[in-house]
Amino acid sequence: MTEGKGFWHVRKTSKEKVLEAAVELFYAKGYANTSVREIASRATVNVALISYHFNGKQGLLETLMTTFFDGYIGALEKECEKVTNSTNSIRSHLESACRSMLLFQQQFDVLSRFVHREMTLDSILVREIMSSYLTKERHLFRYLLEEAFAQGEMITPVNEYMIIQLRGLLTLPFLHSQYIREVHYMVASESYFLDRYFETVRKWLDAHIGEPSIV
Amino acid sequence: MTEGKGFWHVRKTSKEKVLEAAVELFYAKGYANTSVREIASRATVNVALISYHFNGKQGLLETLMTTFFDGYIGALEKECEKVTNSTNSIRSHLESACRSMLLFQQQFDVLSRFVHREMTLDSILVREIMSSYLTKERHLFRYLLEEAFAQGEMITPVNEYMIIQLRGLLTLPFLHSQYIREVHYMVASESYFLDRYFETVRKWLDAHIGEPSIV
Repeated sequence: MTEGKGFWHVRKTSKEKVLEAAVELFYAKGYANTSVREIASRATVNVALISYHFNGKQGLLETLMTTFFDGYIGALEKECEKVTNSTNSIRSHLESACRSMLLFQQQFDVLSRFVHREMTLDSILVREIMSSYLTKERHLFRYLLEEAFAQGEMITPVNEYMIIQLRGLLTLPFLHSQYIREVHYMVASESYFLDRYFETVRKWLDAHIGEPSIV
Repeated sequence: MTEGKGFWHVRKTSKEKVLEAAVELFYAKGYANTSVREIASRATVNVALISYHFNGKQGLLETLMTTFFDGYIGALEKECEKVTNSTNSIRSHLESACRSMLLFQQQFDVLSRFVHREMTLDSILVREIMSSYLTKERHLFRYLLEEAFAQGEMITPVNEYMIIQLRGLLTLPFLHSQYIREVHYMVASESYFLDRYFETVRKWLDAHIGEPSIV
């Protein structure tokens, strides 16, 4: 969680300051209502620097989206790579993958909330991300679930509905962070919330794959 | 599902035509990018009629949001009212409530997708709906789950995480309809999808409340 590989270092470069200012403004005001000038002003950099590094507002949006999905899908991919030489149950790998994906989103909280909301819109960028990153996510989840079925940990064969629901559960605390705050008076990005929320994800895994003690 | 009590009658009034045009344009182009003039043109009514009936664009948005939540929360409320004089298990009432809420959203597909997306934004209207409708939804789910616990159908006491997750599952097919289409090549609002999706909701209920055969 504190690997510091993202753009939120303690000592920030201008590029990092721009990305941080962009995501905060995009999330609070919406992408359409935010100008490059405002981003530059908040990041205390020159407007020209944003053109130079990101080729304007659309480039900034693309960088934010791909940065998020590189990390988010990367967490799942990393866990999938461990499966081949592992003596652990597939269930335990799935659980680790879910935990990593929640922790990654917790680390980049505002970015996660912004990206998930943006993904509910219809645009060329959103479609591109769906046909690349989210299609990859689907394959990786399918791989893990099919392994669980092949190794007898899961009784029912994999179906798409399981994958749709699992990814829905993993993004829910961030996509619905405002609902969680306003209606349930809890902060979705805080560890006390995510720890207990993760228990309900584990219950979901129990229902579909079987409890860890059985396997 | 075909009670025809909404604003999608076969024979539409001008008011209904305006609401239908508004939700389609708001969903496709976004609320900010849609003008009253476009809505009037699509609905083949006079602009003045929109001012008269809805007091402009913001009024239209409010009418759409409250129309949706009246029906959506209404479906849950109707089921809760049956509990007192019922000999059926709470589990069966919960299942009926979930089914009704999915069917209501299916019936008003575009409206549902638009409303759920709108609810991820931060505005005064969204906050008002959260503190009224969604707070009521939370209480009604809590009531059903607490009854299930009181009557011994559910072993673990109710927690907020269960409610957050359950409502997430019920809105997911509509909020993520584009993801479901682009990545899984399925149409979330079609019955073949919802029927099978509902099975995964039942599995969730199995995991939390216990299977219907046990109770």
